[in-house]
Amino acid sequence: MSNYMNYSYDSLKKFCDDAFEKFGFTTEEAKIITDVLLLADLYGIESHGTQRLVRYHKDIAKGLIKVGVKPEVVFETPVSAVIDAQDGMGQVMGYAAMKMAIEKAKKSGIAIVTVRNSTHYGIAGYYTKMACDEGLIGLSTTNTTAIMVPTYGRKAMLGSNPIAISFPADPYPFLFDASTTVVTRGKLEVYNKLDKPLHDGWAIDSTGNESTDAAKVLKCIANKEGGGILPLGGSREDSGSHKGYGWGMVAELFSSILSLGMTSEKTNVGGKGGICHGFMVIDPKIFGDAEAIKQHLSAYLEELRNSPKAEGQDRIYTHGEKEIAAMADRMKNGININKNTVAEMRDLAQFLGMDVVAYLGEEALTIQGKESIYK
Amino acid sequence: MSNYMNYSYDSLKKFCDDAFEKFGFTTEEAKIITDVLLLADLYGIESHGTQRLVRYHKDIAKGLIKVGVKPEVVFETPVSAVIDAQDGMGQVMGYAAMKMAIEKAKKSGIAIVTVRNSTHYGIAGYYTKMACDEGLIGLSTTNTTAIMVPTYGRKAMLGSNPIAISFPADPYPFLFDASTTVVTRGKLEVYNKLDKPLHDGWAIDSTGNESTDAAKVLKCIANKEGGGILPLGGSREDSGSHKGYGWGMVAELFSSILSLGMTSEKTNVGGKGGICHGFMVIDPKIFGDAEAIKQHLSAYLEELRNSPKAEGQDRIYTHGEKEIAAMADRMKNGININKNTVAEMRDLAQFLGMDVVAYLGEEALTIQGKESIYK
Repeated sequence: MSNYMNYSYDSLKKFCDDAFEKFGFTTEEAKIITDVLLLADLYGIESHGTQRLVRYHKDIAKGLIKVGVKPEVVFETPVSAVIDAQDGMGQVMGYAAMKMAIEKAKKSGIAIVTVRNSTHYGIAGYYTKMACDEGLIGLSTTNTTAIMVPTYGRKAMLGSNPIAISFPADPYPFLFDASTTVVTRGKLEVYNKLDKPLHDGWAIDSTGNESTDAAKVLKCIANKEGGGILPLGGSREDSGSHKGYGWGMVAELFSSILSLGMTSEKTNVGGKGGICHGFMVIDPKIFGDAEAIKQHLSAYLEELRNSPKAEGQDRIYTHGEKEIAAMADRMKNGININKNTVAEMRDLAQFLGMDVVAYLGEEALTIQGKESIYK
Repeated sequence: MSNYMNYSYDSLKKFCDDAFEKFGFTTEEAKIITDVLLLADLYGIESHGTQRLVRYHKDIAKGLIKVGVKPEVVFETPVSAVIDAQDGMGQVMGYAAMKMAIEKAKKSGIAIVTVRNSTHYGIAGYYTKMACDEGLIGLSTTNTTAIMVPTYGRKAMLGSNPIAISFPADPYPFLFDASTTVVTRGKLEVYNKLDKPLHDGWAIDSTGNESTDAAKVLKCIANKEGGGILPLGGSREDSGSHKGYGWGMVAELFSSILSLGMTSEKTNVGGKGGICHGFMVIDPKIFGDAEAIKQHLSAYLEELRNSPKAEGQDRIYTHGEKEIAAMADRMKNGININKNTVAEMRDLAQFLGMDVVAYLGEEALTIQGKESIYK
């Protein structure tokens, strides 16, 4: 029996739009949040999709995420702005900030907008895609709850700190979006569920020694005993640990440092989110013929895809290719949602007074989920 | 017996300044090239220091590097420029481009300058330090001869593609400068000399399979049979190979793509360099109080250095700390130059009609180097 139920994009969109409105967001805000979440599901990044609905709802209930607040511009120039998100929903704040960066870049050629006092904003790649859809180069980064241990440390001092960069190309753009840790916490949780040992170079325990014991590492992280996930490049300098740690720092510079916001290890402590984001937009026209630049990249991406494959491999991907294919497939064939998530959505719907059968179908009523947090 | 001779910074500077003038560069150009080379030696990056003198001389003799050419600005806006380096010396072109980016950023807040048709420009971190020394945030990247194999490929399609970012801080700045490959070709050469097996995740042979045989991999690379060095993150997606490959692409975007120049796999073929660089400068003032931002980063860097260490480790470094310490040490105690390099410098000096004893001391006359290329 499948662990998944299949829903059309439109039915998930209707559910999320209506749920977020019931959370207290305006129709426009709800549409933005839904759009960010569902792009993750369309791309196949389940961890950042509808799966997060209940977690966001809990964070609103706790007051960590505030509804009804507006982004406040605290500093501004023609090429920059600093926004205080006032503990608002990360997606709403991220969207406003990226919109502002796009408008400024259209006038000035380049712009950077940083955001402080925000909350989890979903996938970084959503915001860079906004720029890319208008023919612009987009960059976005965010800090997160601390999870990355610096090289030779044993306490998490940086977040998973993803950086995303999008650049227009044909037949699909370059869409790079990667955490600066070697893996994410979600991966550790999957290995823990499957009782599989972690790979070398992924994580350390509270002593700072490498550990392949997922349960142990996750316990260290949850209890804040020390330990965490290693930077891209693993634990040693000879495998490039200091490089992943450096990229994590770059994310910090463009989110928490330039905005004078909280660095990762201070976020999500004591009921305060404090997450920071950064957004940069560059109009390729400031380098001459934007169309020629786009075609130059398109040709290179095609050469990469067509270059000789390693033995046993039949395909070299360029960044964004998998996501674009996944999106096309899921728009046509629907999106598979884990039954645990469907059960959570059902419980949430009942709590919010939504018609479960109309939104999620009859089968949703029969699924055994974990005990509902809404009882 | 030591394999090294010790020279003061000043004596190496005098040697290099005079040698580059004899190559045909102006006094001002010679000083720039020397400055870039010696910063590498001061930082302890021997591969990019005076060690390169003879190689640059050979490239000039071959006509790969042209002396007496000027950077030509082919496109310009208040926040950007594209420079055609006309096959000139990378350091001279890089310096001019970064100077231009700094001037523009001082006026507009942010600027990006890209360069095409250049040659090897030394360490990327030299240029970002130029910005940092003026209280600005600097970013620089370059492509290089192809050496990085994309994830699941077996042909090198990207360069080592370093990216450097500098950000003002006290008591020393954040200076991040890293190739986007897991290691550099120089490291493979060292392991080959020592007859040590390469680490897993470093390199592949011409079949696309991982290989720990340094000699074999280097032969594949030299003969352009396929094979090369893996991206930061190794050969597999679960260790983040696609992330290092993505960062290599980002270097390509900001150097060869935006300048409409040659992508790495087309450079240094048929007597043409074709190397491309990118430079970005951001004035932190466009985010408000530049001094507050600097102190915010300084405090975070100190927290990182003071955070708990892994068992068996007594120090966590922040990026740039090692280089700053090395520079102070070498300015005081001199710079150790490998005797093979000293022999090359002696042969070069004799070829150029320089007084070997006056520049390098009597001992330089007695060193057995490899057979001189100047006979």
